[in-house]
Amino acid sequence: MIQQHIEADSQPAWSERQSDVLQSLQAVKAVILDVDGVLTDGGIYYDPTGREIKRFHVADGLGIELLRHAGIRVALLSGRVSEALTRRAAELKVAECYQGVRDKKAQIEKLRQQWHMKADELLYVGDDLNDLPAFEAVGVRVAVANAVAELKERAHYTTQASGGNGAVREVCEWLLQARGERQQVIEKYLQSRREGGSTS
Amino acid sequence: MIQQHIEADSQPAWSERQSDVLQSLQAVKAVILDVDGVLTDGGIYYDPTGREIKRFHVADGLGIELLRHAGIRVALLSGRVSEALTRRAAELKVAECYQGVRDKKAQIEKLRQQWHMKADELLYVGDDLNDLPAFEAVGVRVAVANAVAELKERAHYTTQASGGNGAVREVCEWLLQARGERQQVIEKYLQSRREGGSTS
Amino acid sequence: MIQQHIEADSQPAWSERQSDVLQSLQAVKAVILDVDGVLTDGGIYYDPTGREIKRFHVADGLGIELLRHAGIRVALLSGRVSEALTRRAAELKVAECYQGVRDKKAQIEKLRQQWHMKADELLYVGDDLNDLPAFEAVGVRVAVANAVAELKERAHYTTQASGGNGAVREVCEWLLQARGERQQVIEKYLQSRREGGSTS
Amino acid sequence: MIQQHIEADSQPAWSERQSDVLQSLQAVKAVILDVDGVLTDGGIYYDPTGREIKRFHVADGLGIELLRHAGIRVALLSGRVSEALTRRAAELKVAECYQGVRDKKAQIEKLRQQWHMKADELLYVGDDLNDLPAFEAVGVRVAVANAVAELKERAHYTTQASGGNGAVREVCEWLLQARGERQQVIEKYLQSRREGGSTS
Repeated sequence: MIQQHIEADSQPAWSERQSDVLQSLQAVKAVILDVDGVLTDGGIYYDPTGREIKRFHVADGLGIELLRHAGIRVALLSGRVSEALTRRAAELKVAECYQGVRDKKAQIEKLRQQWHMKADELLYVGDDLNDLPAFEAVGVRVAVANAVAELKERAHYTTQASGGNGAVREVCEWLLQARGERQQVIEKYLQSRREGGSTS
Repeated sequence: MIQQHIEADSQPAWSERQSDVLQSLQAVKAVILDVDGVLTDGGIYYDPTGREIKRFHVADGLGIELLRHAGIRVALLSGRVSEALTRRAAELKVAECYQGVRDKKAQIEKLRQQWHMKADELLYVGDDLNDLPAFEAVGVRVAVANAVAELKERAHYTTQASGGNGAVREVCEWLLQARGERQQVIEKYLQSRREGGSTS
Repeated sequence: MIQQHIEADSQPAWSERQSDVLQSLQAVKAVILDVDGVLTDGGIYYDPTGREIKRFHVADGLGIELLRHAGIRVALLSGRVSEALTRRAAELKVAECYQGVRDKKAQIEKLRQQWHMKADELLYVGDDLNDLPAFEAVGVRVAVANAVAELKERAHYTTQASGGNGAVREVCEWLLQARGERQQVIEKYLQSRREGGSTS
Repeated sequence: MIQQHIEADSQPAWSERQSDVLQSLQAVKAVILDVDGVLTDGGIYYDPTGREIKRFHVADGLGIELLRHAGIRVALLSGRVSEALTRRAAELKVAECYQGVRDKKAQIEKLRQQWHMKADELLYVGDDLNDLPAFEAVGVRVAVANAVAELKERAHYTTQASGGNGAVREVCEWLLQARGERQQVIEKYLQSRREGGSTS
């Protein structure tokens, strides 16, 4: 499911920008994720009482746990509201989970100020038109495989995996690999499990 | 997920009819959607109490929101009845959601009269044999990728995306693109989000 | 989703046996369906209380309705037990739905006697090893695309669609087409909908 | 869904190691399975109350039943906790189902001692980084098709089927086939069903 795409990327524009992007990744201190279409495949299930069921992917959870071991902040931003997401965020120990967000750009700028970070220190992952403004507020822009053309055109990186099927995990590994931290972070993760640390 | 299919369509019959169809799209004032197999992938989930769960797609919701910003009416017509659909329609602000419809053609004609529209002002999207009569009541006929052969043969346009995986979004973008309204409508949509408008 | 596979079938052994099988289909009076892997994709969902959710496909429902209009009996045979199946069978107006069946061959023979039919008048659709004995009790044996090799080797026909994604619909259309009844049955089906008949 | 991969395996390293692995399979007395990504496709569904729904596959259940008829023990090891898994394990008559396991290696060694077995008598199936330590505790290591590269590199066998779509069934058949027991065990399984034995 997870491959390293740095060497062989199919986007023509990528090779020229490659060294610049790798440079940018060194500065990243926080990863901000859209939810539907990114942490899910875009499926919105309603149960017989009309309330929502969501399908996440276990591999994305491990990726987010790796980011935490690397000291990178994670936040979730969703235009929708569901108890399912609240629970998934809690399980992933992601305290910053914002739901019902109409203006993602404004929310990101608010977060950035709270965190005392620069835009260049933020990475955002999105899939659809309502993520376009969010792209303007961050230094590293990532589109998932199932994203709309407008987003892919503006993205520094497009995942090979689609949302809900490992796209977020791929971003986590790509980021850690580019920073040369991947192996060390995996060791820390495995060590924490031997010691009975946090679950994901 | 969404590409523009106007330039490069694989249907042989299409190129000849292309200019006619683009012409027809200018007149469209309402989009009527079948539900199972169109807004879903045809999956019908029953929970342990025997009641229905449905899986919709978030990208279709954004497409329907774009139509609303373009001033195009949307209606849903389903042969089945479920609370899940009632809720999805409410969330999409689609007031005209008809369930348990046996005779879709009759229902469309009733709607057309209520709306004071001509058949040529209606676009219908379907997937199966029970949509054949509905096709007779509208000016523009669209079949989804997973539709039966009978429907595809009679359709002006067959989507590349399948039902529940962006087919409806593709129809919305195709329609807006053909009318030259797509870019402007997207701007209006993004503006509405900055101002805290309706959710989908 | 549904194509006619009679002209162009990829199974090498098929062409020789083709005319024999088409002959056999004339005699069919009842279609007996396995459930998991045939009417579903084999997925077994458990909800948080440990009870089962099942995913069926809307197109199979229309296929079963076509069989009913052709005067062909339909029965469901499942090794498992769930409320979800009970409800789906009721919705499809399939009165003969047997759950928790350990010995499908014995159950089929019991049904055959109740129906006063010969084995040659029965068609069975299965996917796994526990359907092998059932194959011995019927005249026409069908395996779905996702069936095990042992079943496909013994089948008169293997569907192109997989279970839960139109396999049963394909069998229904294949049967009606071979009997030359398809068009007429579709007309009857559409007529019944205009008159407000049964839902599926 | 299930093919025999012994003759034609695409892994280059496999052919050299093939006879060694087939030798190792003779010694296997227990099969230990990871859950998410192995018995499921990695999907984690939350319902509206924030509790988990899981999707298993019916064909894996039959595979586990075959192992039982071959006198091979089966255990499930999950880092997560859910009522859905408890119920699936009960249905499969797998008494040894351990949930919330942080250190899978330690758990496997505990089981091995309880069972009075050697590491060479254990086979483990996994998909992700947290299965790496588990691999060190067993004689036969299997990765599913959707496993991370680190696991595949260390595996004796990588399945063609992905988790939740027959991967476990493929492992069961591969093991029985290599031991020359497959046909005999299938007969025992079919016999047990005629006699009204256990359900899966």
